[in-house]
Amino acid sequence: MTEAACDKKVDIVLEGMTVISPVSSGKAETVTVIDKGTVAIGCGKILYAGPSPAPPEFRSAKKRIDASGMIALPGFVNAHTHTAMTLLRGYADDMVLMEWLEEKIWPIEAHLDSEDVYWGTMLACIEMIRAGVTTFADQYFFMDAAAKAVRDTGIRACLARGLIGASPDSSRALQENIDLYKAWHGEADGRITVMFGPHAPYTCPLDFLEKVMAAAEEYDAGMHIHLSETRGEVEESKARHGGMSPIELMDSIGLFEFRTLAAHCVHVSPKDIEILSAKGVGVAHNPTSNMKLASGIAPVPAMLKAGVKVGLGTDGASSNNNLDLLEEARLAAFLHKLAENDPTVIPAGQALAMATLGGAKAMGMDSEMGSLEPGKKADLILLDVNKPHMHPRHDLISHIIYSARADDVATVIINGQTVMEDGVLVGVDEQEVLAKAEERAKALVAKA
Amino acid sequence: MTEAACDKKVDIVLEGMTVISPVSSGKAETVTVIDKGTVAIGCGKILYAGPSPAPPEFRSAKKRIDASGMIALPGFVNAHTHTAMTLLRGYADDMVLMEWLEEKIWPIEAHLDSEDVYWGTMLACIEMIRAGVTTFADQYFFMDAAAKAVRDTGIRACLARGLIGASPDSSRALQENIDLYKAWHGEADGRITVMFGPHAPYTCPLDFLEKVMAAAEEYDAGMHIHLSETRGEVEESKARHGGMSPIELMDSIGLFEFRTLAAHCVHVSPKDIEILSAKGVGVAHNPTSNMKLASGIAPVPAMLKAGVKVGLGTDGASSNNNLDLLEEARLAAFLHKLAENDPTVIPAGQALAMATLGGAKAMGMDSEMGSLEPGKKADLILLDVNKPHMHPRHDLISHIIYSARADDVATVIINGQTVMEDGVLVGVDEQEVLAKAEERAKALVAKA
Repeated sequence: MTEAACDKKVDIVLEGMTVISPVSSGKAETVTVIDKGTVAIGCGKILYAGPSPAPPEFRSAKKRIDASGMIALPGFVNAHTHTAMTLLRGYADDMVLMEWLEEKIWPIEAHLDSEDVYWGTMLACIEMIRAGVTTFADQYFFMDAAAKAVRDTGIRACLARGLIGASPDSSRALQENIDLYKAWHGEADGRITVMFGPHAPYTCPLDFLEKVMAAAEEYDAGMHIHLSETRGEVEESKARHGGMSPIELMDSIGLFEFRTLAAHCVHVSPKDIEILSAKGVGVAHNPTSNMKLASGIAPVPAMLKAGVKVGLGTDGASSNNNLDLLEEARLAAFLHKLAENDPTVIPAGQALAMATLGGAKAMGMDSEMGSLEPGKKADLILLDVNKPHMHPRHDLISHIIYSARADDVATVIINGQTVMEDGVLVGVDEQEVLAKAEERAKALVAKA
Repeated sequence: MTEAACDKKVDIVLEGMTVISPVSSGKAETVTVIDKGTVAIGCGKILYAGPSPAPPEFRSAKKRIDASGMIALPGFVNAHTHTAMTLLRGYADDMVLMEWLEEKIWPIEAHLDSEDVYWGTMLACIEMIRAGVTTFADQYFFMDAAAKAVRDTGIRACLARGLIGASPDSSRALQENIDLYKAWHGEADGRITVMFGPHAPYTCPLDFLEKVMAAAEEYDAGMHIHLSETRGEVEESKARHGGMSPIELMDSIGLFEFRTLAAHCVHVSPKDIEILSAKGVGVAHNPTSNMKLASGIAPVPAMLKAGVKVGLGTDGASSNNNLDLLEEARLAAFLHKLAENDPTVIPAGQALAMATLGGAKAMGMDSEMGSLEPGKKADLILLDVNKPHMHPRHDLISHIIYSARADDVATVIINGQTVMEDGVLVGVDEQEVLAKAEERAKALVAKA
């Protein structure tokens, strides 16, 4: 069916709710509020999002949802995670980074197989859907299994095979990323995008990165990479690469000529920020992970001021330990007020925009998603605000960021399909996923 | 009925759940986990909390709750809040402190009446019960109305009339605190404790504090006070009081000879910490409020190391903006890992202990509550962990602190009475509370 034909067919109309959304053409903190609104959906896209009554052509549909007393929002975008690490949730906490990796995480990860990753990603997907996340960016391995879980749960994802260039199997891993692209890019009704996933400058020698860039160029794909997460990593880069920070180094080899999603960017200099801004690099800020692992505080207000595209990520469940993007939005607002000694920094609207449109921009997908605007993919959520912590209704944007919880998410629509309605997942056997994840995790611990 | 008679009568038996609790006699971070446990309750107290099967005398009861697959925890203790400020939730955010107070909060508070405080406190109480908070320490005004809301919702509270000594009506306020004590201390089946509430050293001249101490001595009551929340307040104290910090000043006038609950303690020196420890002062740490208002980072690890009794508080809803103590526990763990640059600081067990027994200790009530131990008041909650974010079950203590949410609280028992069962509040018309709070808040805004 062509898009033009699609525009005439309304599949779902949601009415009666407050419609809150950032605006693609607006400033980072511009968020509009429509008290009584309508959203019309057809062919997986938003046809209308505005005041009620909607124009006549958007009033009747196959399915009508009375969302009175609710809030409609664009779905949250989790711009950086390692989804299957849900299997390691709570497996090792409160440890020093290298001990945690070397003694606990890496040894158990060595036993992971494709079946584990499928069920770990299924667990992550249903957790995220329940928390109103409609898109995530993942970098892990056995990504074919992750893609199947994305297909099976109805969520949208940007998948990359994590590539450790320094590892003996780096060529095979790169081939797997290429195969992932060929098999899955644009699949699952267009819900899957594939990127290349060079893990980080400190794990990928420059000659390996050249190979990754060659592949990405061939497929016109983007990059998902970790940059400047820890102070030590920046110091090491400077010592080994003639005083260049990881960001300067990546810029020097031309990585940022590709659409790039950079996770963390905690220890960045003013010069690094200039580069990120000039090259349009997207940044996934992970406040929980950065606090829990004591990595440091990313200078997010400075990045935003410089026009860097900043979204939010949960990072993997083993360093968070949930995949609750709303919590990241709240924490981003709190953390930077504290860090800047200024309670006006990152007001609620800006935090909400980062959690939605900001993430879409960071992933280079803001023409498709991140706001409730006609022509975008129909990725939206309904919050049930008939709860004590959401009253009285002085300011709903403030309530969403400073008081709401993941469980307020009642209904989730992704790509025009209802994947959760009134708290019930559609088309997924939730108890089976919990049982399988539990079983796989137990078996992994026994092997480790 | 005497206590001895009580001990023979089992009102409620909960079985099949994992029982997790800090231990009164243990170290701050000692938390025990009993895989399949039983809790027996009679006459408002815990009669048995241990492995199943329980001794025969604790096996039959009027009410049996099959809590298989759940976690039983002591209820959370919110050691510092201003409950009726729920009416101002979202009314003014992202502002500089003095502008916020002078232009928004104080003008609207000037219009508050007793009916407002009743419905604001009702809203706060049902929000807290839903989030597993079984006890809170409050400092506000129209506390007679607050006491009625405590009576009507079944929660436990430690109430103080906030006293601004520098205000023209300070004598009347002190008399109200005395009247509050006479009318409500020990009332509502013993659920209400009354303290005196001198707001802070910078709002209470020393001669006024002398009067408060005289009253507290007469009634053998404790004190609930704000200490060293902001840097400016400490500097002002030093300038006006011969170099003494607020804590040194309060020590010098003998305030700490009373059982004292000190909120915030953000800008405290090693000498201040020594005093807090030596005098057994309880500290209510409010990580969200301190971050949101950019007040600073309290040196909690140093206080804990020095043996200071540290609990957690949400502060009022206008500076948080919810009353979710679990979120405070998580944030305390994150914030101090970051501040100390050490991910091993405040491990999950210690955060859980602060949220429960720590708060009870800070309020001087740990002989009565804060843990699941025979002889203590039956204040406990059940968490439903049959949720994606609580799987797999590598470590339940870690899950509670790093992944659980307020909505996981299914059942709440306070003083042996079930106040929420499977998510449904008992004996409170929740929709009426929401409507009344909304109505009172709207009217207040119209007046301001």
